[in-house]
Amino acid sequence: MKTIHIGILGLGTVGGGVVRLLQENGPMIDARLGARLLVKRIARRRPDAPTPVAVDPALVTVDPMDVIRDPAIQIVVELIGGTEEARRYALEALKAGKHLVTANKALLATHGLEISRAAAERKVDVGFEAAVCGGIPIIRVLRDGLVANRIRSLLGIINGTANYILTKMTEQGRPFTEVLAEAQAKGYAEADPTLDVGGHDAAHKLQILASIAYNTFIGLPQVPVEGIAGIEPADIRYARELGYVVKLLAIAKHTDGELEVRVSPTLIPEDHLLASVRGVFNGVYLVADAAGPQMFYGRGAGQMPTASAVVSDIVEIAANILAKRPSRRATLHLPGVQGELALKPLEEIRTRYYLRVMVADKPGVLSKVAGVLGNHNVSIASVIQKARHEQEAVPIVMMTHEAREGDLRAALAGIDRLDVVSAKTICLRVEES
Amino acid sequence: MKTIHIGILGLGTVGGGVVRLLQENGPMIDARLGARLLVKRIARRRPDAPTPVAVDPALVTVDPMDVIRDPAIQIVVELIGGTEEARRYALEALKAGKHLVTANKALLATHGLEISRAAAERKVDVGFEAAVCGGIPIIRVLRDGLVANRIRSLLGIINGTANYILTKMTEQGRPFTEVLAEAQAKGYAEADPTLDVGGHDAAHKLQILASIAYNTFIGLPQVPVEGIAGIEPADIRYARELGYVVKLLAIAKHTDGELEVRVSPTLIPEDHLLASVRGVFNGVYLVADAAGPQMFYGRGAGQMPTASAVVSDIVEIAANILAKRPSRRATLHLPGVQGELALKPLEEIRTRYYLRVMVADKPGVLSKVAGVLGNHNVSIASVIQKARHEQEAVPIVMMTHEAREGDLRAALAGIDRLDVVSAKTICLRVEES
Repeated sequence: MKTIHIGILGLGTVGGGVVRLLQENGPMIDARLGARLLVKRIARRRPDAPTPVAVDPALVTVDPMDVIRDPAIQIVVELIGGTEEARRYALEALKAGKHLVTANKALLATHGLEISRAAAERKVDVGFEAAVCGGIPIIRVLRDGLVANRIRSLLGIINGTANYILTKMTEQGRPFTEVLAEAQAKGYAEADPTLDVGGHDAAHKLQILASIAYNTFIGLPQVPVEGIAGIEPADIRYARELGYVVKLLAIAKHTDGELEVRVSPTLIPEDHLLASVRGVFNGVYLVADAAGPQMFYGRGAGQMPTASAVVSDIVEIAANILAKRPSRRATLHLPGVQGELALKPLEEIRTRYYLRVMVADKPGVLSKVAGVLGNHNVSIASVIQKARHEQEAVPIVMMTHEAREGDLRAALAGIDRLDVVSAKTICLRVEES
Repeated sequence: MKTIHIGILGLGTVGGGVVRLLQENGPMIDARLGARLLVKRIARRRPDAPTPVAVDPALVTVDPMDVIRDPAIQIVVELIGGTEEARRYALEALKAGKHLVTANKALLATHGLEISRAAAERKVDVGFEAAVCGGIPIIRVLRDGLVANRIRSLLGIINGTANYILTKMTEQGRPFTEVLAEAQAKGYAEADPTLDVGGHDAAHKLQILASIAYNTFIGLPQVPVEGIAGIEPADIRYARELGYVVKLLAIAKHTDGELEVRVSPTLIPEDHLLASVRGVFNGVYLVADAAGPQMFYGRGAGQMPTASAVVSDIVEIAANILAKRPSRRATLHLPGVQGELALKPLEEIRTRYYLRVMVADKPGVLSKVAGVLGNHNVSIASVIQKARHEQEAVPIVMMTHEAREGDLRAALAGIDRLDVVSAKTICLRVEES
């Protein structure tokens, strides 16, 4: 049996998981591959710190270049995290002619094109299944399983922290800050939660998913992002009264020859499959032109789910090495495949909206608000006007029919200028399918 | 750009879908593959019958051997259906050194080993993604995405007809025969529905899924099967009162070093993800040791979903041909990979049960029934005793704790011999996770 030598950069949670998985399921994985996978060197910054898994100290080095320069190593697994150091060593590994496996979505989102080009130049592979949705093999699904399909739309719950927080807010009626603090205490949220609750991590992943699904490279600044910090229990409650739940959705849609991409808290019908994706779980719901609607569900993070995805990439690349097969997936972006899809400007998208307008409880107020909407071509599908309290602001909750985002924004600006309106209007998009 | 020539046997619904998909999305698929896929010949029994898609008549022949013998054709796509003719031409194609793609689960279930051996002998590939779950790429998920995982358990709703019928029975409270007739009128069920409602089609697919997931060949007669024809609206209603829904589940589980496989109508908790799989849709829920719980959902049948899976196999095999890469998936069965798992005899499985015992409404009856269960080590978790009607049989509905199937069957035999019991007791298994 042949041996394929692997080098690992970073022995943190995921690195430890990869080593553990190769130890525990090694014989089965080797039999499936038809070759032996051997971890030959591991770089870690603090070689004397306790390891998350038993590792032969002789394999460990402080210098990632010791791993990259090892002539026997054919696959380098980058699990350092961050973007600057990771970028440097990823590029060094590719330049040295090594295949690269990474779980680093921030690296791909910020330096993906540079990495793709470096890999293409040396005709080596880059595996990044672990960068999106942890253990769910969504990259393979899009690239291989649905290869014959155009993806009409893709809706993803792809940030476990945000979904955990929204799930707790929904099921327990608690405010954002309180649930966030609890999530931080439990280790489900970082001390600085901005990347997760601000929607930026979801945007990183959406950028990768949309690049694969639509064969077009999307730059991170092109993805409009809204986070969940402004969501109040009241909005979750009103949404539920209307038959919806609030989820942080990453959305990509192919409409009228243009591509829409965005991340925002969104209302989805309570009987939508994505509404069942609770807690830290991830789910990707997509509509493919031939295969129809599909959903993929699982753990989007965590040591062993992420290790599962990393090892699946190692096995695929090892199989290619054994077959002396040319690289197939070196680029995130396959230029020219279905033309460069233009991105639809955010103000041009059309969708339904949930609005909560805080108004003085006086006769004629609804008519004023409705008038502004009407003047901007936004029509109202339903209204809930909540209990009357003398001299206090009361909410008018509305669902609009489909409207143009630009018109809706102009209407909102007009509404918030009305003297009967007492606070900035809350606006959430609604997905029906 | 190189050309890969394809031959198609059978131009029915799926064959027409494959031709249509290669026409409609051809340029995109070719760009993704890096070669041109060309349908060179098509065999159909009645060449003058109307075609489901526009086809150059010069490509059409009556004799499948014209396709198989064409030296330019490298991939033969068997879409004839049935088992005898399909087996003959599949083996002829493999003997002629052609790669084979098939959507025929009955063929694989009955002649899978013979086909695997013939393919291995000629070192050619057999693609069968379309044989299970239509457009859901579940074979790739098990083979590639979860390659590093041992599958602990797999629960599948993998027969759309049965799921459609159970969904209508549940949501509309209507009896089996009435909903079946409606499904037949709508074309969702065959004139002879035995294969679907009897659970045999699900068993075919389970056999394929379990063979891949557990690297062990399971013969069809080894899969215990129960269908849904005996399910009454009353049982669906009682199940719902207890917080469950009834689904036809295909189950494979790795427990105590043994493998359980079975198909039967089963109660699952109403908040289980599989409970949301409604109508003709399919869903596979599995627990992998590293990746954790996952679910895959989509259309399990139909022209274009099946064509999507067939073309994904064609693309994969074509990529292998282009790379001159040796066959990787020629066998359903990879002997020795995790040892030949012994099948657990049905009487040794342990699970919870739903029982409906029809009894005379007299004092002491429950005690008699409970006594028989207790004598066979079956303990009761909860009981619903339904409304009393003088001199009529009334149902006692029970959920048991986990029990051994052999003990439960012995208890049922004893219960049905009691003079106070007026009909054969209804017994359904329960899955909690």
